[in-house]
Amino acid sequence: MLVVMQAHATEEQVCAVCKQIESFGYRPHAIPGAQRTAIGITGNQGEVEVGNLEEMPGVAELIRVTKPYKLVSRDLKQENTVIRFPATDAAIGGRTLAIIAGPCAIESREQAFAVAERVQRAGAQFFRGGAYKPRTSPYSFQGLGEAGLKILAEIRERFGMKIVTEAVDSESLELVERYADVVQIGARNMQNFSLLKRAGRSPKPVLLKRGMSATLEEFLMAAEYIMSEGNYSLVLCERGVRTFADHTRNTLDLSLVPAVQRLSHLPILVDPSHGTGKRNKVLPLSRASVAVGADGLLVEVHCDPDHALSDGAQSLYPEQFDSLMDEIRLAIEKDNSARPCRLYRGRALLDLSRPGAAQLSSRIPRIRLCDQRQE
Amino acid sequence: MLVVMQAHATEEQVCAVCKQIESFGYRPHAIPGAQRTAIGITGNQGEVEVGNLEEMPGVAELIRVTKPYKLVSRDLKQENTVIRFPATDAAIGGRTLAIIAGPCAIESREQAFAVAERVQRAGAQFFRGGAYKPRTSPYSFQGLGEAGLKILAEIRERFGMKIVTEAVDSESLELVERYADVVQIGARNMQNFSLLKRAGRSPKPVLLKRGMSATLEEFLMAAEYIMSEGNYSLVLCERGVRTFADHTRNTLDLSLVPAVQRLSHLPILVDPSHGTGKRNKVLPLSRASVAVGADGLLVEVHCDPDHALSDGAQSLYPEQFDSLMDEIRLAIEKDNSARPCRLYRGRALLDLSRPGAAQLSSRIPRIRLCDQRQE
Amino acid sequence: MLVVMQAHATEEQVCAVCKQIESFGYRPHAIPGAQRTAIGITGNQGEVEVGNLEEMPGVAELIRVTKPYKLVSRDLKQENTVIRFPATDAAIGGRTLAIIAGPCAIESREQAFAVAERVQRAGAQFFRGGAYKPRTSPYSFQGLGEAGLKILAEIRERFGMKIVTEAVDSESLELVERYADVVQIGARNMQNFSLLKRAGRSPKPVLLKRGMSATLEEFLMAAEYIMSEGNYSLVLCERGVRTFADHTRNTLDLSLVPAVQRLSHLPILVDPSHGTGKRNKVLPLSRASVAVGADGLLVEVHCDPDHALSDGAQSLYPEQFDSLMDEIRLAIEKDNSARPCRLYRGRALLDLSRPGAAQLSSRIPRIRLCDQRQE
Amino acid sequence: MLVVMQAHATEEQVCAVCKQIESFGYRPHAIPGAQRTAIGITGNQGEVEVGNLEEMPGVAELIRVTKPYKLVSRDLKQENTVIRFPATDAAIGGRTLAIIAGPCAIESREQAFAVAERVQRAGAQFFRGGAYKPRTSPYSFQGLGEAGLKILAEIRERFGMKIVTEAVDSESLELVERYADVVQIGARNMQNFSLLKRAGRSPKPVLLKRGMSATLEEFLMAAEYIMSEGNYSLVLCERGVRTFADHTRNTLDLSLVPAVQRLSHLPILVDPSHGTGKRNKVLPLSRASVAVGADGLLVEVHCDPDHALSDGAQSLYPEQFDSLMDEIRLAIEKDNSARPCRLYRGRALLDLSRPGAAQLSSRIPRIRLCDQRQE
Repeated sequence: MLVVMQAHATEEQVCAVCKQIESFGYRPHAIPGAQRTAIGITGNQGEVEVGNLEEMPGVAELIRVTKPYKLVSRDLKQENTVIRFPATDAAIGGRTLAIIAGPCAIESREQAFAVAERVQRAGAQFFRGGAYKPRTSPYSFQGLGEAGLKILAEIRERFGMKIVTEAVDSESLELVERYADVVQIGARNMQNFSLLKRAGRSPKPVLLKRGMSATLEEFLMAAEYIMSEGNYSLVLCERGVRTFADHTRNTLDLSLVPAVQRLSHLPILVDPSHGTGKRNKVLPLSRASVAVGADGLLVEVHCDPDHALSDGAQSLYPEQFDSLMDEIRLAIEKDNSARPCRLYRGRALLDLSRPGAAQLSSRIPRIRLCDQRQE
Repeated sequence: MLVVMQAHATEEQVCAVCKQIESFGYRPHAIPGAQRTAIGITGNQGEVEVGNLEEMPGVAELIRVTKPYKLVSRDLKQENTVIRFPATDAAIGGRTLAIIAGPCAIESREQAFAVAERVQRAGAQFFRGGAYKPRTSPYSFQGLGEAGLKILAEIRERFGMKIVTEAVDSESLELVERYADVVQIGARNMQNFSLLKRAGRSPKPVLLKRGMSATLEEFLMAAEYIMSEGNYSLVLCERGVRTFADHTRNTLDLSLVPAVQRLSHLPILVDPSHGTGKRNKVLPLSRASVAVGADGLLVEVHCDPDHALSDGAQSLYPEQFDSLMDEIRLAIEKDNSARPCRLYRGRALLDLSRPGAAQLSSRIPRIRLCDQRQE
Repeated sequence: MLVVMQAHATEEQVCAVCKQIESFGYRPHAIPGAQRTAIGITGNQGEVEVGNLEEMPGVAELIRVTKPYKLVSRDLKQENTVIRFPATDAAIGGRTLAIIAGPCAIESREQAFAVAERVQRAGAQFFRGGAYKPRTSPYSFQGLGEAGLKILAEIRERFGMKIVTEAVDSESLELVERYADVVQIGARNMQNFSLLKRAGRSPKPVLLKRGMSATLEEFLMAAEYIMSEGNYSLVLCERGVRTFADHTRNTLDLSLVPAVQRLSHLPILVDPSHGTGKRNKVLPLSRASVAVGADGLLVEVHCDPDHALSDGAQSLYPEQFDSLMDEIRLAIEKDNSARPCRLYRGRALLDLSRPGAAQLSSRIPRIRLCDQRQE
Repeated sequence: MLVVMQAHATEEQVCAVCKQIESFGYRPHAIPGAQRTAIGITGNQGEVEVGNLEEMPGVAELIRVTKPYKLVSRDLKQENTVIRFPATDAAIGGRTLAIIAGPCAIESREQAFAVAERVQRAGAQFFRGGAYKPRTSPYSFQGLGEAGLKILAEIRERFGMKIVTEAVDSESLELVERYADVVQIGARNMQNFSLLKRAGRSPKPVLLKRGMSATLEEFLMAAEYIMSEGNYSLVLCERGVRTFADHTRNTLDLSLVPAVQRLSHLPILVDPSHGTGKRNKVLPLSRASVAVGADGLLVEVHCDPDHALSDGAQSLYPEQFDSLMDEIRLAIEKDNSARPCRLYRGRALLDLSRPGAAQLSSRIPRIRLCDQRQE
C-alpha cells in the first residue's frame, strides 16, 4: 500500500500520516520525489487496514501495490534515486557515470596506494578493494580485515575518493560502516537475509550485487529487504550469472540494466570484471555497459595482476584502465572543444548546449513513452 | 598434507604428532578410520613445513593432497562417515536410509504435532521443520523463532525422532544447536562463509545443502570450511539447481550423489521436495534418489498443504508419505518373509543371509574397482 | 479439437467421422484406446469448424484441447502407448523395461558383432549403433553410412535384436527406415522440423531425443510434429541438458520422466550414457532411471572404449553392462524363486501372484488419483 | 595444417601448392590475406603428410594448427573477413555497421513493402524476413515459402537492399540461394550438420546463428563445417542463450562478440530482438551491441507488431527503429560538422582527420597487443 501525498502537502501533514500508519502497527516509509512525497507501508501480514488515511489532510490518493516489492518499485517513486556524498561531487545514479575501481583485495598499503594513485588520476571517483574476502576455499587469503579498512580510510584522505568495500557478516559490517562510504554486499550473500536486514539499519549507502543465479524478482526482493529496514540509499550491481557458457567465467546479463530501470528507481551498476572473469573482455563489456545505460562501473585494477592474491586474471593493468576511461569519456563528459557531447550515458542523443536538453531526453519520460505503447 | 599413521599406532603417538603439527603453527585434524588414523593438516599458506614428522613414531607416510579440499576427501578417510546419535538407532550414512520428514515451517504446536505423529508412524527417524525461514520476501512469514525450536524439542521428547532444523545466522545457530540434533545450513547460505565457520565450531552435526548454482567443487569446499574448524560430523544434501527447465521449480541433479561418493567420505542425502517443487514429482524422485545410492531423504510433509504458510505446493499429504515409505521400504528393510532383501540402498545386489555379504558388496570396494580401471 | 467416439462405435462410424473431418479441410487422426477411439483434428488455423460432427452416429462428445500439443496428449488417449514389433516379444512402453544397448558408432563388423554378442547375452532386446554420426567437428569420424546400416541388419539376423539407429537428414532417413526397426532423431535435430515431418511420414517407429536446452513443452511439440504427419509410433528419450554443472557432461533431468507421463501417453526412455558422459555414473543413474519409472534405457557399450572412435569415455565395458543388467533385473523380472517380484518398473509395489494385480497398480489410475487431488 | 605463402608468391605458385595438396588426397583452402596467402588443409584423418610442401617455390612456412577449428581461425587469416556485395556499398565486417532489419516473417506483399520502405529510409542496407519459419508448433504459421522469396526479390529491386532470409532444409536452401543475397541458418539448425555442409556448397554468403545452448567452440566448429566445404563468405550472429533468467526470453551474451573476434577472422553480428524477446529491450541492447564491437545488428521491425503472425512482442515499431538508427548513427558515421567522429564501431577512439588513423587504431593490432601481454 502506498499513500501518495499532494504536491503541496506540508511536512507536518506527511508526519501526521506516518504517525497514523504507525498507530495501526505498520511501518511508514516516506520517500520524497520531485513532485510529491509518497509513503510506503510495510509490516502488514496480508491486507493493510487503511482506516481514515484517505481522508487525512494532504493525502492525494491510496494505491494498492500489486508487485511483491514495494519500496524499490517505481510505483513508489518515479524519479531515479541518486546517492550523493556530502562535501564531494561524487554521486551514483545521477547524470555522471560512477566509476568504482581498485584491486580485488587490499593486500598491503603499498599495493593499495599504487593502484589508488593510478585509478584516481584516470578519473575514478570511488575506490574499491576487499578487506574481507569471501573465498571458495577456507585456505585462501581471506583479506586483511580491519587493517585493510584502515588502509582504505587513508586512501580516502589522501586521494579524495570515496571508499566501497564488502561486509561479509554483521561483525565485519560493523567495521565497514565505520571506515567506508559504501557497504558492499556480495553476490554470495544476496540472499543472506540476516545480513541484508543488518545493512538496512546501516547509516551508510549499500551496494548490493546480484546473486549468481538470482532472477530479477529475487534481486529486487533482496533490495526490498534492505529498504524495508529503513535504508533507502541503495545501489544495485549486475556481475554475471552462472550458465553453461565457458568462454567467460560468468555470463554478463546486460539486459538486466534496462529491466531494473523499468521497475525500480534504484541505480544499477555493472561489474564487467567479475562478469567476464577475463581481463581482455573488460574493456569491450565496459563500453557495452555504458551504452546499455548503466549508472556506473565496478572495475578491478591491479598494478601487478600476475601476483595478485585473488582474481588476478580479471584485473586490468593500470594502463588498460586508462584506455577504458578514454574510451568511455565521450559518454560521460562534455567534449573539450565546447561542442556538445551527444552521447550521454548510452541512453539518448542530447545536445547539452540546448537549454533544457537534459530534461527532454532524461531517462524516465522516454521509458514511460514506451510503457504506454507497449504494455 | 596428510599424515597417515600406522595401523598399530597408539593414541599417544597420534597425540604427539598432533602436538608437533601445532608447534609448526598449523592445525591437526585426526580422523580415525577403520584400519588406521589419518591426520589432516590445515592452516598453512602454501607448502607445509613437515620437519621431522615423517620420522616420528607411529607415522606410516606423508601424503601431499593435490585437491583443493582435504578433510572432506576420501584421501583422508576411505570409509564412509557415519553420523550416529547417542541412545538411539538413528544414523546418517550407515546401512539404513535416513528419512528426515516434516513440514517446511513450524507454524504451531498443533500443526507440528499432527505431522510428527504421521511421519513417525510411517517410519521417519528424523523430524524437520523450520523455526527460522529464509524467505525471498521480507513480508513473508519468517518462522516462529525460538518458540518454534521449543515445539521441536517437545516433538523429540514425545516421538523420539531426532530434530533437524535450519540456522540462518550466528544468533539463530546459537539457539538451534541448543535445541536441535542437527543444524541445517540452507542452500542460500552455502557460501555464507562466516556462518559455515560458526557451524564448524558447533558441537552438533551439520546438514549442508547445495547452493542453487554451486558446482561440485564449490559444494565440497563449503563442507571443507566447516570441517576445517573441527566439526567432522557433516552431512551433504542435493536439493536441485537452477536451469532453464520450467517443468520443475529446480532441476534435481541426482548425478551429484555418486560424484560426491567418489570424492568424499561424507554422507549425501537428497531433498526431492525442494528439488522438484511439485508434490506429484516427490514420490518418483524419492525412488530414484534411493536407487542412485543416496544415504537418505529430506521430505516435506504437511497435513493441510493447501494452507501451509510456506512451500505448500511441494509438501506431501501424510498418506502420500505413507506410500513413499511403502515403496522404498524394500530398499531399506529385510523382507518379512525372512528371505534376503536383495536391493540394498540402490547400490548393489547383496544377499544378507550369506555370511560376510555386506562386506563383499559394500560401496567402497565397488567404487574403487571402477576407479582403478577408468581413471 | 477431439472427437471422442462411443465405446460401442463401429469402424464404419469412425471412418464416416474421419471423412467428414477431411471434407472440412482438416486432417483426422483416429487413435484407438482401450475403451474407445478418439479422433484428433489438426490442420486448422484457429478455431475448428465442427459442423454437424456432434450429431453423427457413434460420436460421444467433442472436447476442445487447450494445450498446444494435441496428439501427444493424454487428453487424446489415456492408455500408455506401447510400441510393438511383429514376430517378437520386444516392446517399448509395455510392462517390460526396454533395454537398448550398443556402441556409440558402428566402426566395423567385428567391433559391432563383438558388442552385440555381449549385450544380447546380457538381456538387451534392442541394439543401437550409429551409422550416421552428428559430430561437432567436420574432421571427426562421421560414421560408415549405408555400410554401417548393413552391419546392423546382419546383427538383427544373427542375434534377433531390433535395431535402433540415427538418421540425420532426409537422405539418411530414407536408408535408415529401410534397414532399421526404429529411426532415432538425435538431440541436435530435435527442432529440425523438416526432418521431424519426414520422420512423421516414415512407416517405422521413431525415437526422439530431447534437445540439449529444450523445455518440456518444446519436446512435446517436437513429438507433435511427427504425430501430426501420421506416425503414431513414437518414443521419447531424456538424455541430459546443458547447465553450469561440470561434474557431468550434461545434467540428467530425471524429473522429466514423470512430467512426460502426466501429460502424454508416449513412452519415455532415459539415456544415462549421454546424460552423464562418464562411465562411472552410468550404473547408478540407470538404477535411478528405472526407479523413477522410465520405460527403458539407452546405454552405450563398447568392448574397447579406450579406442572407440567416439564417446569412449561414457561407454561401459561389457562386464559393467552385465552388472547393470543384474542390478536392474529385480525391477524387470519375476524372481526366480517363484515368489512375486514386488518392485515393478519403479512405479508401484505389486504382487504378480495376485490375480488382477497388474491392473490394480498400473500407472494411469495412480497418476489420475494424484491429479484429482493436486491440481 | 597451414601453408603460409611468401608475400611475393605468384598465383601459379599458390596453384601448384594446392594441386600438390590435392595429390595427397587432402583439400586445399587458399585464403588470400592483406600481406600474403595462407592455404588451409582439411580432409585428413590424423596427421597431415606434408611431403615436399615445405620446399615448394613460394612457400614461407608450414604451421601446425592445434585448435579444433582451422579455417575459421585467425591463425589462418589475421585480417577481418569482409563480405562484399557486387554493385553496392553494402558490406558485412568492414568499417561500416551492417544493419539488417525487417519483419520476423513475410506475411504479405503489403506488409513486407511497408516495413521495407521504413527500414530502408532509416538506413538499413539489408532486409530480413522469413519465407520459411521454423516454429515450435506444427500448427503455427510456417511461412509463405517461395511466394515469400519472390516478395523479397521484389523488395531488393525496389529498395536496393540486400536480402537475408532463412533456409531450413536442403530444399528451401535451393530456393533461398536463388532469390536471396545471404542464406541464414537459424539457431535450431546450428548443429544440423547436413544443412551446414549444403550451405558450405552454396555460392551465396551464409549467416550462421548461434544455437540456444552452444558453447563458443561448438559455434566455431559449426562455422568450420561450412568453410570446410569451400564457402568462405560467412557471418556469425549471437542471438541469446538459454538460462534460468526470466526477465528476457533469452540471455543475450555480448561477451561472445570479443571472444569470437579474438579467435576468428569472421564478422560477428548481434540479434537483440531474439536475444531479449522484448521490444523495450531492443534499443538499449542494440547500443550495447555496437559498443561491444559487433559488426552489425539484426533487428525485427513490423508496422503492426500486435497483429504479426510471429514474434510480435519483440518487433520494433518503425518509429522505434528510427530512434535506434539515430542513437547508433554517431557510432557509424562521420560527424556532419566535418569534425572527426571519435567513437567508431565501439572499438577504439580514432581521429579520422589524422592520416593513417584507421590503421593505428584498427581492431587487430589492438587485440594483438593484449594477446602478447595477457596470454
